[in-house]
Amino acid sequence: MEVGFLGLGIMGKAMALNLLRHGFSVTVWNRTLSKCEELVESGASVEETPAGVIKKCKYTIAMLSDPSAALSVVFDKDGVLEQMCSGKGYIDMSTVDAQTSSKISEAITKTGGCFLEAPVSGSKKPAEDGQLVILAAGEKALYEEIIPAFDVLGKKSFFLGQVGNGAKMKLVVNMIMGSMMNAFSEGLVLADRSGLSQQTLLDVLELGAVANPMFKLKGPAMMKNAYPPAFPLKHQQKDMRLALALGDERAVSMPVAAASNEAFKKARSLGLGDQDFSAVYEVVKVAGSSEES
Amino acid sequence: MEVGFLGLGIMGKAMALNLLRHGFSVTVWNRTLSKCEELVESGASVEETPAGVIKKCKYTIAMLSDPSAALSVVFDKDGVLEQMCSGKGYIDMSTVDAQTSSKISEAITKTGGCFLEAPVSGSKKPAEDGQLVILAAGEKALYEEIIPAFDVLGKKSFFLGQVGNGAKMKLVVNMIMGSMMNAFSEGLVLADRSGLSQQTLLDVLELGAVANPMFKLKGPAMMKNAYPPAFPLKHQQKDMRLALALGDERAVSMPVAAASNEAFKKARSLGLGDQDFSAVYEVVKVAGSSEES
Amino acid sequence: MEVGFLGLGIMGKAMALNLLRHGFSVTVWNRTLSKCEELVESGASVEETPAGVIKKCKYTIAMLSDPSAALSVVFDKDGVLEQMCSGKGYIDMSTVDAQTSSKISEAITKTGGCFLEAPVSGSKKPAEDGQLVILAAGEKALYEEIIPAFDVLGKKSFFLGQVGNGAKMKLVVNMIMGSMMNAFSEGLVLADRSGLSQQTLLDVLELGAVANPMFKLKGPAMMKNAYPPAFPLKHQQKDMRLALALGDERAVSMPVAAASNEAFKKARSLGLGDQDFSAVYEVVKVAGSSEES
Amino acid sequence: MEVGFLGLGIMGKAMALNLLRHGFSVTVWNRTLSKCEELVESGASVEETPAGVIKKCKYTIAMLSDPSAALSVVFDKDGVLEQMCSGKGYIDMSTVDAQTSSKISEAITKTGGCFLEAPVSGSKKPAEDGQLVILAAGEKALYEEIIPAFDVLGKKSFFLGQVGNGAKMKLVVNMIMGSMMNAFSEGLVLADRSGLSQQTLLDVLELGAVANPMFKLKGPAMMKNAYPPAFPLKHQQKDMRLALALGDERAVSMPVAAASNEAFKKARSLGLGDQDFSAVYEVVKVAGSSEES
Repeated sequence: MEVGFLGLGIMGKAMALNLLRHGFSVTVWNRTLSKCEELVESGASVEETPAGVIKKCKYTIAMLSDPSAALSVVFDKDGVLEQMCSGKGYIDMSTVDAQTSSKISEAITKTGGCFLEAPVSGSKKPAEDGQLVILAAGEKALYEEIIPAFDVLGKKSFFLGQVGNGAKMKLVVNMIMGSMMNAFSEGLVLADRSGLSQQTLLDVLELGAVANPMFKLKGPAMMKNAYPPAFPLKHQQKDMRLALALGDERAVSMPVAAASNEAFKKARSLGLGDQDFSAVYEVVKVAGSSEES
Repeated sequence: MEVGFLGLGIMGKAMALNLLRHGFSVTVWNRTLSKCEELVESGASVEETPAGVIKKCKYTIAMLSDPSAALSVVFDKDGVLEQMCSGKGYIDMSTVDAQTSSKISEAITKTGGCFLEAPVSGSKKPAEDGQLVILAAGEKALYEEIIPAFDVLGKKSFFLGQVGNGAKMKLVVNMIMGSMMNAFSEGLVLADRSGLSQQTLLDVLELGAVANPMFKLKGPAMMKNAYPPAFPLKHQQKDMRLALALGDERAVSMPVAAASNEAFKKARSLGLGDQDFSAVYEVVKVAGSSEES
Repeated sequence: MEVGFLGLGIMGKAMALNLLRHGFSVTVWNRTLSKCEELVESGASVEETPAGVIKKCKYTIAMLSDPSAALSVVFDKDGVLEQMCSGKGYIDMSTVDAQTSSKISEAITKTGGCFLEAPVSGSKKPAEDGQLVILAAGEKALYEEIIPAFDVLGKKSFFLGQVGNGAKMKLVVNMIMGSMMNAFSEGLVLADRSGLSQQTLLDVLELGAVANPMFKLKGPAMMKNAYPPAFPLKHQQKDMRLALALGDERAVSMPVAAASNEAFKKARSLGLGDQDFSAVYEVVKVAGSSEES
Repeated sequence: MEVGFLGLGIMGKAMALNLLRHGFSVTVWNRTLSKCEELVESGASVEETPAGVIKKCKYTIAMLSDPSAALSVVFDKDGVLEQMCSGKGYIDMSTVDAQTSSKISEAITKTGGCFLEAPVSGSKKPAEDGQLVILAAGEKALYEEIIPAFDVLGKKSFFLGQVGNGAKMKLVVNMIMGSMMNAFSEGLVLADRSGLSQQTLLDVLELGAVANPMFKLKGPAMMKNAYPPAFPLKHQQKDMRLALALGDERAVSMPVAAASNEAFKKARSLGLGDQDFSAVYEVVKVAGSSEES
């Protein structure tokens, strides 16, 4: 199967390599063309423009860093739109907001081409291991045709319906995750102030009904007040805010998410926005020197 | 190794059988003596009073249904105290409040005997499979002597320090669990109202960083508005309240637990106290017939 | 002093009559021109277009029903902009969002004219009695020149600095008001469920440090489950949301406003959006028929 | 009318003087007898023990500093109980918890005497001016007989039913007050961070529907970060906790009070427990030096 691939950042490179390794014929493009070299050594072809990739390939996957890059690759000179047409499919796996996704979707569809948004859950390691979770939405037929590629890139893909649903699903998941991080932080502080060992709490949690990879991964670092940014707090807070806004539209009352969001905002006000979102632990922990005993 | 065993309810019977199966010599007592028969068939001896068990055995384990039963077995006529003395150990694995545990601890210690509180995490199935998690606190030496029995009863035991710490650890864990259940409920409702499939949300969660047995087990039932009481909501709310009270003592601010607690209280006011604690989902879901679209 | 007046709805008519009564020379315009008749009987002149009013008067006050009306009067054919010019002042007293206000401000300023936003606090009765509170922002010089009119329309006017600050001040005040309404509702329900008389609670509150007109006015109606819409709940919830969004921008954590907002959202989901915002009382009160005793 | 009066602290002295001034014949007692002198100069008689006052007077009012003093005066040697009997009435106006009040009530009633709890709202100044608000509960007949004294001591008295209701009413009022203080603090911080003048916010609030003495009195001090303890934060937080506990008993969900309570707890953890409860403003305000702009 032949596919185009736009964007060779940390994620994109790992994904394109996976496709090559599994026998796909891959034509790549990257803004900084030199980044294509390693892929060429692994058997990829190169085109000098996004339009060139689209022209050559029936299916093209994009993995760009942010909404502005995702828009630029489609709408700029030598961009995707110049060669997009009926019979071709464009799959954008970048993480973008619903509005950006809709804009790209409309433009692609107007050319007669097919569009799929397909944001992923998972970062560098799962990308390398082909263990991403893919949240696809848009043209169902295109989804079915591209499944062989998704099978290589992810451990599981979902088709979620109309464009925008991929982004929404990520918001719901991240909202749950953000509230859980607050619950976890409150538990860690309560344990400590009550004379219990935090390490033992982690051990007990690990053996019980709420055991989960996040507690296991982040707990030990939080105990050392270390928050290396895997998912920056300001992005988590933005997702909480967007999830609450979605709930506002639908009149869904979510008091626990709202309380969690306010804690993340307090963390931002303490200058922790660029730390990992587990730094909300600092908000729960903070206490004065003259604290009551 | 010889142990006494007081209380043959669902949990106690499974535990005593496990001990017998692993070669322990077990002397049992139960308020309704007929319940001892099955154990006798499996090789247990029987005594007619708690005092009789204590007299015969160096170590006695108790697994009673509630605080009043735990107190009665110790303090009543023919109770534990009548034969307790230096050189003997009493291990109470019932789930009781800190106050009850302290009262028993003081009485046992006054006789010269050793005391351990050892509430467990896990219900019928883990009890049968020897997969409980044991949260022990009290006399360290006794803990070390009784480890061979704990190894049979549980997959893991913890020694948490002074009497009361076992109960506190359970509160912290249940508080985290209660907030997680609220976060989960809010996510399920938000997904549904946003036009996303709840089943897909469960599937996505199951593959990600917050995957945990509770979501997996309870999610499908919640989707069907079914809340068979594994852990009754009124007990979960009581534990949230007690955890918040512990936080009050120590001046720990826990806004997410507080918001969760109010949702559980609302659930109680809707008559859901005897349902499983996952019934808090009903509180999030409830909306009027003239709801805005 | 001569002023133009655009918009003769409930508020605008009362305000224009007040100006006439106090000796102002007033030229009015209204989309439905027949509404001008009563004003003419009281001595007003009429123009057939907003542009006509602007051409005739040095100062023109607008009191339109919503942002789209406010924009239409300025930007449409025969609108304000066609005659606006240096030496003239435009005072928009409509309640609009900051974005609308900025758009109008820019357009007016570009013509060389002066702009003031001046939303008011208070509804029909205070408008008739000249007891409004005026929250003005924009061109300071224009504020000072128009004070004679403000003195007639309101009991007090404030100059708050740059355009947008009037809208923000309203948000802050309404946020406080919304949280207070929730606190009041919780108190009323707690009193009732605890066997205390709600009327006595109102009487005690009225005599104490938190006595305020809102409790006094709305309390008796709430006790009867009556919520005639003075300020619709959906508008109050929108203002809470916008206040929280403002706090999000500035990283201000406001957990009590957030909890209040979720209660208003729940009220919307119960179909209470068009009732008075005091209907949030229903959310606090709601309980199942099988409620615990 | 003749009344006994036990306890001549700041409040008690002012109250007893008021009674004398209005023609009551008053017999006083105080633990430190020298404090009776000023009262004697104003026409009071003195007895050397509480029992002596009870023996002499048909009605005796007590105004003690705390629960232990209230209990001591009743139960100790030479205490109230020694002379209490049918035909006599005892009115305890001290602020005590419901449990203390019940204990005293039972003991008095057992002698055949009548009991009224009558905690007051208001401090030194209202006591001197006879402007207290009296929350009476207990024996209705006694309430009616003692009204002439209440008319002198307070601007208003309420009869609330059975013993305990006076304390409960105070909790409900203080809960509303505590949430309002949080709402007010959030508004003050939001105004400041949004570039609005806090003084103007106070002025606008003062003119609107939520104007109340507390905002007016405490606002200016809060703006200067001054919290002279009129009502200590730790006592306000205790009352919030007790009100929430009352709500827990009755299954009343109160998310705004719960969020407010957590803010007060955070204030305690910052060492502000002995400041005025308006110091919760510090919790809302706190932000890091590297705060986002």
